Amino acid sequence: MSELNDNDYGRLIVQGADRPGIVATVSGVLTDQGANIVSLDQSSSDPSGGRFFQRTVFHLPGLSARMDALNAALEAKLTGELELDFRLVEAKKRKRVAIFVSKMDHCLLDLLWRQRRGELPMIVPMVVSNHADLGDEVRQFDVPFFHVPVEKDNKAVAEKEQLNLLKGNADLLVLARYMQIISGEFLDEVGMPVINIHHSFLPAFMGAGPYQRAKERGVKLIGATAHYVTEDLDEGPIIEQDVIRVSHRDTARELQRKGADVERLVLARAVAWHCEDRVIRDGNTTVVF
Amino acid sequence: MSELNDNDYGRLIVQGADRPGIVATVSGVLTDQGANIVSLDQSSSDPSGGRFFQRTVFHLPGLSARMDALNAALEAKLTGELELDFRLVEAKKRKRVAIFVSKMDHCLLDLLWRQRRGELPMIVPMVVSNHADLGDEVRQFDVPFFHVPVEKDNKAVAEKEQLNLLKGNADLLVLARYMQIISGEFLDEVGMPVINIHHSFLPAFMGAGPYQRAKERGVKLIGATAHYVTEDLDEGPIIEQDVIRVSHRDTARELQRKGADVERLVLARAVAWHCEDRVIRDGNTTVVF
Amino acid sequence: MSELNDNDYGRLIVQGADRPGIVATVSGVLTDQGANIVSLDQSSSDPSGGRFFQRTVFHLPGLSARMDALNAALEAKLTGELELDFRLVEAKKRKRVAIFVSKMDHCLLDLLWRQRRGELPMIVPMVVSNHADLGDEVRQFDVPFFHVPVEKDNKAVAEKEQLNLLKGNADLLVLARYMQIISGEFLDEVGMPVINIHHSFLPAFMGAGPYQRAKERGVKLIGATAHYVTEDLDEGPIIEQDVIRVSHRDTARELQRKGADVERLVLARAVAWHCEDRVIRDGNTTVVF
Amino acid sequence: MSELNDNDYGRLIVQGADRPGIVATVSGVLTDQGANIVSLDQSSSDPSGGRFFQRTVFHLPGLSARMDALNAALEAKLTGELELDFRLVEAKKRKRVAIFVSKMDHCLLDLLWRQRRGELPMIVPMVVSNHADLGDEVRQFDVPFFHVPVEKDNKAVAEKEQLNLLKGNADLLVLARYMQIISGEFLDEVGMPVINIHHSFLPAFMGAGPYQRAKERGVKLIGATAHYVTEDLDEGPIIEQDVIRVSHRDTARELQRKGADVERLVLARAVAWHCEDRVIRDGNTTVVF
Repeated sequence: MSELNDNDYGRLIVQGADRPGIVATVSGVLTDQGANIVSLDQSSSDPSGGRFFQRTVFHLPGLSARMDALNAALEAKLTGELELDFRLVEAKKRKRVAIFVSKMDHCLLDLLWRQRRGELPMIVPMVVSNHADLGDEVRQFDVPFFHVPVEKDNKAVAEKEQLNLLKGNADLLVLARYMQIISGEFLDEVGMPVINIHHSFLPAFMGAGPYQRAKERGVKLIGATAHYVTEDLDEGPIIEQDVIRVSHRDTARELQRKGADVERLVLARAVAWHCEDRVIRDGNTTVVF
Repeated sequence: MSELNDNDYGRLIVQGADRPGIVATVSGVLTDQGANIVSLDQSSSDPSGGRFFQRTVFHLPGLSARMDALNAALEAKLTGELELDFRLVEAKKRKRVAIFVSKMDHCLLDLLWRQRRGELPMIVPMVVSNHADLGDEVRQFDVPFFHVPVEKDNKAVAEKEQLNLLKGNADLLVLARYMQIISGEFLDEVGMPVINIHHSFLPAFMGAGPYQRAKERGVKLIGATAHYVTEDLDEGPIIEQDVIRVSHRDTARELQRKGADVERLVLARAVAWHCEDRVIRDGNTTVVF
Repeated sequence: MSELNDNDYGRLIVQGADRPGIVATVSGVLTDQGANIVSLDQSSSDPSGGRFFQRTVFHLPGLSARMDALNAALEAKLTGELELDFRLVEAKKRKRVAIFVSKMDHCLLDLLWRQRRGELPMIVPMVVSNHADLGDEVRQFDVPFFHVPVEKDNKAVAEKEQLNLLKGNADLLVLARYMQIISGEFLDEVGMPVINIHHSFLPAFMGAGPYQRAKERGVKLIGATAHYVTEDLDEGPIIEQDVIRVSHRDTARELQRKGADVERLVLARAVAWHCEDRVIRDGNTTVVF
Repeated sequence: MSELNDNDYGRLIVQGADRPGIVATVSGVLTDQGANIVSLDQSSSDPSGGRFFQRTVFHLPGLSARMDALNAALEAKLTGELELDFRLVEAKKRKRVAIFVSKMDHCLLDLLWRQRRGELPMIVPMVVSNHADLGDEVRQFDVPFFHVPVEKDNKAVAEKEQLNLLKGNADLLVLARYMQIISGEFLDEVGMPVINIHHSFLPAFMGAGPYQRAKERGVKLIGATAHYVTEDLDEGPIIEQDVIRVSHRDTARELQRKGADVERLVLARAVAWHCEDRVIRDGNTTVVF
């Protein structure tokens, strides 16, 4: 994160069909432009016919002024010759992360605290909730809070209002225990990645009352999964997971409480990695460098 | 396990409907008989109308000779007055644990090796497999190995043969990666608890090729669950679970390999706890003291 | 913690030299007084000549009014006949937990936030700091904040002021990253247990700059330890420990940040267990039920 | 490890003083020689004036026949122009790993099993012990076993004999709970890396009887550390660490038993990573890709 204190760090994410010579080409372009590669992670899903992924952090004096030239050089070589997708970002530009929340505050507060402590390289332009409860809390962090009630019969209108708030103001949307289902239309229009956190169990308990059912089954581990949201609810590409140990002494309520501890840790990690451009989506899976 | 080196340690497991005074009654009987309580774990699922569970380890000089008297005293007080179930065991009597296995050896070898090292308070009277592959390996541990082939059209006969081998010779059956489905008839007749180990994922992947599907979904944790076998396959009361961290760098085969490490640890813990009478079944859950 | 919502739950902690019959005696007294034992944990350090520890949670209608009688009955049997120490508490009486802090807020905020969420059965009567920085933050939780500067030449005076603040107002003192050494005189006079949290490494790095030195040694795990404070700094009985995985990619500063995540979790667990009377000190070790 | 089933995979490890253009140069050489880079990990300890580390896995048809040309091309560019150290290996060439052991078998057997199962890309040319106890066990794996007694007054002679056995026959020496101190002279002459495993605690307990002392201090975690051996005993660069949870219920002997479970897992991981050329030493730390 020292990358944040120096204006001249950049990150380059490259992905596409694998073929020989990509690493050499990419690093050749960067070197030709005067950049020093600070760290490079690369992997291929399969050496023959697989997918190629690369994350490169580099240092280039006067980076801002040279972004256009660098973009053009990369486009010529990567998009043109090699048919690869790439993304070039200045590390100093923190991502703007909007947060949706309902009434449970554990994930929200953890993100706001970490942001204030300098642990998360992000700006929080707004928190939006379908309940008014957490407004005071959020505003103590000097973050705008918008209350957009969502009822059965106004859902489309509410989503429209949410989209208007987000439009142009955020780079990432985080659902920090937002207890409403996001519609496919919303996802089509939001124009930014959406990260969700939800509890996870071994085995899975579908449907209502999962903690009670986990209790009835006597599970020994409670988990949480952070993932990108797709139209299949709770089924998008996984970014991070973790678990905590529980026992027969824990009531269903205590399971939920311990689950909350895992949820906030897992979500914070997922958001940090996303903001540092460490997560590359590949179909329904992710590469996390 | 120092309990094993002294003939005079006993364990008493009590369970049933909770009501006031059970602990006092149980400890009163033990004290009256001259026993010293070494450790006692007790819990209730709910203080009013719940289920009561207690595991007590005690020391009583000349235990073997006094088992009948102790059993009678407990029966009078617990079964008669309080309508509780109880089980009294001499700690020195190691449980006889038969193992079923197919071709994968990791769980089997871990159990045999821990038994030899003195880590598992059990005797292994036999290993039964539907394949001949692991015979030599097993016999190096001076454990009898029986090859009982299981084919589609001889399953009932094979299970009959397995039951004949087990009858009177074992107190517990462990399925250490035994890749055949056990029939309801077998479970009805086997007359001893059966413990199984299987992989677990968040989320769950039902059906074939779970590691490949976990790979495709990009899971970050691979787990294993040890449970008592009931007629609902992979659905019995859970004894122990654990996970290991994986990443996009792991192939499906490496996921399986890491899963094997968790499986053998989790199964070894579950078998040890069962053999030490630490696991009390309660419907579809367990209390592990 | 449902114990907190019912006035009639009590906890009884018993410890002393082990001898036959203690459990029977204790549970006999409780049963005679009309109490129902809800959970009971007991262990002995050694069946012959060891130390005895027991934590019992019970339900007794009209507990408050019957505390004196119960105390007297226990004193007669336990202190008199068996020479045991015991402690009887009403579960509804939350412990008053004063917090000392310096500038780092992660442990402090985690405790205040969990208290507000109802996760920690405690009241926070005050936060005391040798710096003014965290005052606003603390007061947002409606908790009094006192700034007591500590300089080299006023340490005795400052400690006197701290003791005056604490006197009669707290049952436990938590050092939540309080970066001053507590004197032996302070400990002699404070009259309540003191819990501290500090980083832990394998191997240990004594002295200044431990994270930098851990980085130089390439450690793969960063840990934290919560312990009762004794005159030997960082050497008191351990209550809880945990670790987090790190790698060569982490800078010394990132090690510190990850360490902070472990510290707050470990401290929160230790404080919760203390407030629930789960921790029994035994010389330089603890029994945690 | 699919790298092992194809003759044409190679690994290139590069390290040295960081400077702009190294990645481009390295990948340029590989691409010029017709290699396809399959995975590449790179990091720098500091972008200005730091140390550079890179591990590259590549696929090059007909690798064996082209090793000399590739070595020459790399030498010209890397050693000559950039003053970097590099190491080029054919992935199919399994490392020869000699094992020293005393009487405890848990680490030894875990390595032999994993090797037999195909989990560890290594050959075990010999096991050497200062005791005869484990000879039969080792030979069942078709591995030669040599008994070299070490007494106080014959240590130099014994080490000479050990060196003769190793000379030319091994690429790595693993001390799998070998309870003798290795002399500086032995390390000077052995001519291969040496990996050791030892228990670790938070806090550290130096000297004799660490498990008993950990018990007396009431530690809640027991750990293990695998490291390269240097003349400072137990102080070399750390490769891997892990911990397991323990409680007041565990006796010192049970702590040791649980410690053994961690030791064998940690050592197996360290040996696997070394054999896959994932570990790069950098002074007293390691980079593990």
